[in-house]
Amino acid sequence: MNDNDNGLLLIFSGPSGAGKGTVLKELLHGNDNMKLSVSATTRPPREGECHGIHYFFMTKEEFEEQIANGEMLEHAEYCGRYYGTPSAQIMDWIEEGRDVVLEIEVQGARQIKEKRPDCVSIFVLPPSLEELENRLRYRNTEDEETIQKRLAVARQEMETARDYDYVIVNDTVEHTVEQINKIIAAEKLKVSRAKSNIERVLNND
Amino acid sequence: MNDNDNGLLLIFSGPSGAGKGTVLKELLHGNDNMKLSVSATTRPPREGECHGIHYFFMTKEEFEEQIANGEMLEHAEYCGRYYGTPSAQIMDWIEEGRDVVLEIEVQGARQIKEKRPDCVSIFVLPPSLEELENRLRYRNTEDEETIQKRLAVARQEMETARDYDYVIVNDTVEHTVEQINKIIAAEKLKVSRAKSNIERVLNND
Repeated sequence: MNDNDNGLLLIFSGPSGAGKGTVLKELLHGNDNMKLSVSATTRPPREGECHGIHYFFMTKEEFEEQIANGEMLEHAEYCGRYYGTPSAQIMDWIEEGRDVVLEIEVQGARQIKEKRPDCVSIFVLPPSLEELENRLRYRNTEDEETIQKRLAVARQEMETARDYDYVIVNDTVEHTVEQINKIIAAEKLKVSRAKSNIERVLNND
Repeated sequence: MNDNDNGLLLIFSGPSGAGKGTVLKELLHGNDNMKLSVSATTRPPREGECHGIHYFFMTKEEFEEQIANGEMLEHAEYCGRYYGTPSAQIMDWIEEGRDVVLEIEVQGARQIKEKRPDCVSIFVLPPSLEELENRLRYRNTEDEETIQKRLAVARQEMETARDYDYVIVNDTVEHTVEQINKIIAAEKLKVSRAKSNIERVLNND
């Protein structure tokens, strides 16, 4: 198998309320060649959560062994629990020619970009801060203080959008998904990924 | 006007017989926002050739003055005549937000990439060397020696495809045009070109 047939590793970041979840659901819907990366954690499973679907549930020892072996693309610790992205399944899918989608916050994205500079990073922006605030309020699940905190974090995260490869303003889900699909198509035509196309034509294969 | 509204400078290369001409004609057809760059030359106009449409016809002195003033994006001399790409009109169009298409051989492309690293370079490959040979023969305008020479040059040119940003195998005109349009859309979403999108959202403009 040559590099040409490899899938892409696509990482998505964006503030809470930018609409990443809906966009990724729609992007994956009906695209059999695309897979959503599964995170690993040392927190215990909640009701209805399945191992290998919602998370890979691991013991602290298993998780630390994977870090030590370089088998985590990125990881972080929150409240005494590990969260991370195991590379094994992702790399298998990519070698099978599948595009793998990863939703991740900005620090994790940075770690992955360092380890896999060939990944394609996309930052999803809300149409405006006002619209972001509306969306957060519309959820109606959080008090004013939490909303203000989320807005402050969103502003900080958006400042890091400059470190990504692409930035998309998520005006409508359909338009955003269309733009992502164009990015994927274009990335696959890049010379850095398509060198074997040149060889194939030159060698009359 | 911010950088976001600027058009793209798209440079196309590919061996004779790869089908660039047909592809670019189709690409420009019905796309009012796209313009085809007009070359300059010091050779006299042939019958039916219009100044500013087929070429900018210049005297040797005018051409050399433009070179001296850095007003040529690239130039070359063949058989005692100058050929080149004047930058003025291209830059005007780009600042108006129009995408400008430039068909150019590989040395010219290299000169432009040096002067305008933000240009997007696309190499158009034929599906195979065999197909390229068929296409050259089908034209039925050249003798065997010329065809063999063209094939040798094509092979050399294709070796330089690695220096381009994108490479497209021109299987059908429709598919190739579709791929080019996806590249254009993706390039406009690159953070390097879309920084003002981030500012706009952050500043609630």
